[in-house]
Amino acid sequence: MLLSELGEFGFIDTIRGLAEDDPRVVVGIGDDAAVLDLGGPELIVVTTDAQFEGRHFDLTWLTCHEIGQRAGAAAISDIAAMGAKPAAVFCSAALPPDWVAERAQDLLAGLNAAIMAVGGVLAGGDTVGNHQAALDVVVVGTVPHGEALLRSGAQPGQALAVTGKLGATGAAVALLQVLGPDCWADERLAPVRKRFATPAPRVAAGRALAQSGRVSAAMDISDGLAQDAGHVARRSGVHIVMEAARVPIADGCAEAAEELGQSALEWALTGGEDFELLIALDADQVEAVSELPPVAEIGLTVVGRIEQGSGVTVVDPDGDEMKLARGGWSHF
Amino acid sequence: MLLSELGEFGFIDTIRGLAEDDPRVVVGIGDDAAVLDLGGPELIVVTTDAQFEGRHFDLTWLTCHEIGQRAGAAAISDIAAMGAKPAAVFCSAALPPDWVAERAQDLLAGLNAAIMAVGGVLAGGDTVGNHQAALDVVVVGTVPHGEALLRSGAQPGQALAVTGKLGATGAAVALLQVLGPDCWADERLAPVRKRFATPAPRVAAGRALAQSGRVSAAMDISDGLAQDAGHVARRSGVHIVMEAARVPIADGCAEAAEELGQSALEWALTGGEDFELLIALDADQVEAVSELPPVAEIGLTVVGRIEQGSGVTVVDPDGDEMKLARGGWSHF
Repeated sequence: MLLSELGEFGFIDTIRGLAEDDPRVVVGIGDDAAVLDLGGPELIVVTTDAQFEGRHFDLTWLTCHEIGQRAGAAAISDIAAMGAKPAAVFCSAALPPDWVAERAQDLLAGLNAAIMAVGGVLAGGDTVGNHQAALDVVVVGTVPHGEALLRSGAQPGQALAVTGKLGATGAAVALLQVLGPDCWADERLAPVRKRFATPAPRVAAGRALAQSGRVSAAMDISDGLAQDAGHVARRSGVHIVMEAARVPIADGCAEAAEELGQSALEWALTGGEDFELLIALDADQVEAVSELPPVAEIGLTVVGRIEQGSGVTVVDPDGDEMKLARGGWSHF
Repeated sequence: MLLSELGEFGFIDTIRGLAEDDPRVVVGIGDDAAVLDLGGPELIVVTTDAQFEGRHFDLTWLTCHEIGQRAGAAAISDIAAMGAKPAAVFCSAALPPDWVAERAQDLLAGLNAAIMAVGGVLAGGDTVGNHQAALDVVVVGTVPHGEALLRSGAQPGQALAVTGKLGATGAAVALLQVLGPDCWADERLAPVRKRFATPAPRVAAGRALAQSGRVSAAMDISDGLAQDAGHVARRSGVHIVMEAARVPIADGCAEAAEELGQSALEWALTGGEDFELLIALDADQVEAVSELPPVAEIGLTVVGRIEQGSGVTVVDPDGDEMKLARGGWSHF
């Protein structure tokens, strides 16, 4: 069987068993980040996020500073999804020897900006020469015992909600693929570019949600809302019903969809890398959670409900099941 | 200026300043691993080590299991060099979608074997599809407060010593480059292949050295003995005199050198990736340190001395300075 046939999640399943039954591993493979108990007053949370030129970033789409910042945000978002606080960040950078040095320095400066914005520190890494540029960003964070937010806690009867608005990354990628970087000359699309180039991982919101004790499950939107809901459904052993009409669409996406003749809702459901938080909570907790200051700042929208069963169903305003053009992002 | 002109260490220097003055970072960029104080009873030690197909490994040279094991050993060796104990390991794996799945599973199984051999646990990672295979291995370990071994502690008057024997990786790479994998048909070269394919990072020795309190500085041999001595010299602000005749040569290297008409000493001095430990200690401590059980098992050899000044001088048995064909491994 080829790796592409086994698929990313099949491959991950084959190695998941390795970490089980080790008392140091509180949460292992299969959540946004691993949670370790190394004997300290807080648990240690670790995530790694690899980005390759040509697959995850394109040097003609963003500045090197923005690419670095985005790579940092992607990794930090996994820590935010656990309700943890980022501490130290490490970066393995594969860089082409024929790059001008300034380009590499801009990349690291952008990464550092993303780290500093959330109170972390760039503490080390590895550099290797390679024809294809790549960044692997590792974030080590901390979370108090008992506060880590997992994908596995969603319960039937609860509501499913997302922070912020979705679809900007899907819109930006579609615009860049069809029209190229000249698309940004259209000022109506400026919010799309801003969200794509400098996403803000939801660290403060994640911490507030974790501290509140009012949230049962969480993850970040990285593979696309529909697919990420599938991860929550699988890890929690529940069925998720997503109401498409309630999905909050990011600013500028409607204009981009009009420009391209594509669907903004589709970007929000399957685009991925929006770095908002997807949470499960009791319906009577939604109001209190919405009012937590870092959540109130970015907004919280109920987009569905948790039921008994398995899988994800996306329904239109009439309650009819919608078929998505694609399920979301897969790495193989 | 191109990145290749700035060089790996020039590039690292430009980003080193970022981590300074953060109370969480006890040791930042510039040692084998970073040391963090996250408030626990022990310090947290973190290293990342990236390996790219075609640059750091070749699928025709070793089995996938061995490549994984070697990648794990390389990263774990950095933790050993700090006198720390590995706990949890994370791996970002870039894998070609057209690989048979078994190959990828073998790679991870080899990595897991290296981790289990030192009491660690594979706790997570990231997988991405990419035409070029790559592994970035992150090791999180722990070390008691005050015990971390740094590159910066060598003092004039001290001795420089190495554990084990050197040159097997240099010999193996030379054999594979000149003769190809058929070279292993020669049974005299079996020890070279064994050391190359399944290196044993010196975790037990590193912990014993750190606990003994008898060692002033340490690092692992990853770039080559001469170049790694240069790192110790620079970080400690000292001059190192290396006596070539005392450098312990690994089994099978003499036979490989004869076969190829190359120099086993050159491999030991510049070959890199032997994953032994290079330490500085008072001359009157050498005997006691040699007798620490995990050190006695692999041997300890004095190879030089620390003097005032800067840089590294390699001298022949007559005390005359030797010029090396190349300084060691550089990543750009």
